Amino acid sequence: MSVTQPLGFLAAGATAGIKPSGKPDVCLIARDRAHSASAPGAGSAMVFTRNVVVGAPVIVGRALREATLAGRTPPLSAILINAGNSNSATGEQGVADARTCMAAAARELSIMPEQVLPVSTGVIGRPLPVAKITGAVPNLARALARGEAADAAAAAAIMTTDLVPKRAAERVTIDGRTVTIAAIAKGSGMIAPALDCAAGQPAPSGTMLAFITTDAAIGSRDLQAALEFASPRSFDRLSVDNHPSCSDTAVVLSSGAAGGSPIIKSSPAFTAFTSALLRVCTSLAEQIVADGEGATRVFHVTVRGARTDADAEMMARAIVNSPLVKCAIHGQDPNWGRIVTAAGIPGIPFDTAEASLLIGPVEVYRAGVPIMAALDDPQLRTAMSAKRVPFILTVGRGKGEAWMLGCDLSKDYVSINADYTT
Amino acid sequence: MSVTQPLGFLAAGATAGIKPSGKPDVCLIARDRAHSASAPGAGSAMVFTRNVVVGAPVIVGRALREATLAGRTPPLSAILINAGNSNSATGEQGVADARTCMAAAARELSIMPEQVLPVSTGVIGRPLPVAKITGAVPNLARALARGEAADAAAAAAIMTTDLVPKRAAERVTIDGRTVTIAAIAKGSGMIAPALDCAAGQPAPSGTMLAFITTDAAIGSRDLQAALEFASPRSFDRLSVDNHPSCSDTAVVLSSGAAGGSPIIKSSPAFTAFTSALLRVCTSLAEQIVADGEGATRVFHVTVRGARTDADAEMMARAIVNSPLVKCAIHGQDPNWGRIVTAAGIPGIPFDTAEASLLIGPVEVYRAGVPIMAALDDPQLRTAMSAKRVPFILTVGRGKGEAWMLGCDLSKDYVSINADYTT
Repeated sequence: MSVTQPLGFLAAGATAGIKPSGKPDVCLIARDRAHSASAPGAGSAMVFTRNVVVGAPVIVGRALREATLAGRTPPLSAILINAGNSNSATGEQGVADARTCMAAAARELSIMPEQVLPVSTGVIGRPLPVAKITGAVPNLARALARGEAADAAAAAAIMTTDLVPKRAAERVTIDGRTVTIAAIAKGSGMIAPALDCAAGQPAPSGTMLAFITTDAAIGSRDLQAALEFASPRSFDRLSVDNHPSCSDTAVVLSSGAAGGSPIIKSSPAFTAFTSALLRVCTSLAEQIVADGEGATRVFHVTVRGARTDADAEMMARAIVNSPLVKCAIHGQDPNWGRIVTAAGIPGIPFDTAEASLLIGPVEVYRAGVPIMAALDDPQLRTAMSAKRVPFILTVGRGKGEAWMLGCDLSKDYVSINADYTT
Repeated sequence: MSVTQPLGFLAAGATAGIKPSGKPDVCLIARDRAHSASAPGAGSAMVFTRNVVVGAPVIVGRALREATLAGRTPPLSAILINAGNSNSATGEQGVADARTCMAAAARELSIMPEQVLPVSTGVIGRPLPVAKITGAVPNLARALARGEAADAAAAAAIMTTDLVPKRAAERVTIDGRTVTIAAIAKGSGMIAPALDCAAGQPAPSGTMLAFITTDAAIGSRDLQAALEFASPRSFDRLSVDNHPSCSDTAVVLSSGAAGGSPIIKSSPAFTAFTSALLRVCTSLAEQIVADGEGATRVFHVTVRGARTDADAEMMARAIVNSPLVKCAIHGQDPNWGRIVTAAGIPGIPFDTAEASLLIGPVEVYRAGVPIMAALDDPQLRTAMSAKRVPFILTVGRGKGEAWMLGCDLSKDYVSINADYTT
């Protein structure tokens, strides 16, 4: 189960004929009629890519976010997703096409067009095949259901180069009531999410799509705050290829069906809900990296001892994005000089005389000096050959710390990406 | 011919047994005794990596630069280079080892140790095999010669994963005298040079090594100014893997043997000399990218219409460093959406409604809208299959413009880098 596990939500997947492969390529997630968007405790929250170049659905989505947070329109009631075409770099026609899709879904569901978030992923710079999508909408609406089959169909229909569907779910007790948070997501290329927040401040950046539902009672503004807490601590920690997409989107819909009074920001209930949401988002992030294009293993980089967390993050980010580091991980090669030098790329000063590096349990570099005996330690070989390789780099005595999650760079990555549109 | 073409310089290459392959791995470039460093018009200039993590030779080299520019020591008289070990992440022992090598060369050449620049490239985090290098120095000194054989031996000995040696030369008439500038260089991985300048200001970022000689009469300070003009406009324009090395180094030695009074900054002679130096550096940069690890073709990205040159450079840099763009180039795939979205990664605002993209002579995107007919233009296929693919991205109406040079990402890149130290 996933997105239809929390009470109040239905899902469906179908084939509209957008993907040349003929695989499922449209998905609808919608509130059931018994739990409408105007129910107490219902809300919606969204974060989008911080890439300057954004797809038409992101332009539309940001306007929907503003309207729902300002209370001008009710929360989102449905999400209409297509794979195979990102409706990006398509100009004003792209926005018009997105609106046509929203209207088609709204008609079938008897809701306002402004309650339908359009989401598109796939090739960039091709007109959206609107007729295929609107043609599939009635079938999708009829197929809307709750349960394992619906969840599986939805998770499959949003995949692009993903090899496996991604799902996550958490149960947590809040104020004596059981609350469920569940999600589906996709990766797997153009992945280095840096998601914005409602206020528009620059925050850290694939096409990563994540659709999350919960039966918790929490209104749009508090839900947005919860998502803006969880997103930079999970989605923004992952990078497959250091290329934030024009379409990255994460959405949460709440139904309030679990009952109780709405969760308010800064309350203990909010903390409990936000922690559970973070666990769901972190699980999705781990699944996305593990299924990164061509990936055979992941690596987790912690940078400690920096002046600030932001400094540590820039260094950790430079490490997970270095193709030299990624190839070394692929080759199970403890070529740690690449890691130490990658940390020096962002230009943040640190004293190598205070630097050290652990690969798994093995210290290979201490106080700026290589530990040659480490290269013969069998634990080093074990750590480098694991599916998940942990690195801990200390760069000084500061309190700044951050982690990033990356994947190796393989020949399959090149195969997948050297021949994608043609 | 190359570094011994300008009068005043000798070169030699030899095998010290550092490279496991048994190929040549030590090189010496030195002034001949008839043109010493104290001759009128003799000088030296150096730029080094801006990576925060630097090898022992860079630590030593920066101190030499400071001393020569301040006039505390005479200009450099020799450069002793080894491949196979970068003497980086080696702590204080690394600096002591570099000094031992300097002393060995100084003894053979009857110069001061402070006139020998040590340069090391290769694996990071392994003690420098000092005895192999000092053992080879007498042979190198005996082999010092002028002419094609010496130049070829020098260019070969500094190679690491390079497939071909890199050389360049320019002749220019300055104040009625013929001046020659010649160079050897190496790439080919950990290449994204960002070279500093003597004043230490942060400037933009492999192990790229470039050794340049000239018979022009130009003292160290003016020569340094010339190198600091040419370096950001050539070396810093190239990226193989977006991983600036801890060892990037470019050096120019002048002998003054062409005669005439020394070239002074801001004079017409300086402009003529600097332009010729820039042509030499640009030729080396092009050769380094073309021989980037696993590269089968290069691509040249121009970003125009940005607010500032710096903004344009950040966008161009994001494009040449995107693995998605690099794979598309490898696949001869005109997947231009990756280029447009890569320009949006640095967060510099631009209006896609004013954006356009040319691939060779073919406009594929105009005013934010895809030109679908372009995809069927045979000129597009011709442009994408060339050994050098030009892209021109316009992002607005500003005067900011910059170019970057990148190479494709191939399966060979992964092979080369997944199994390097072991």
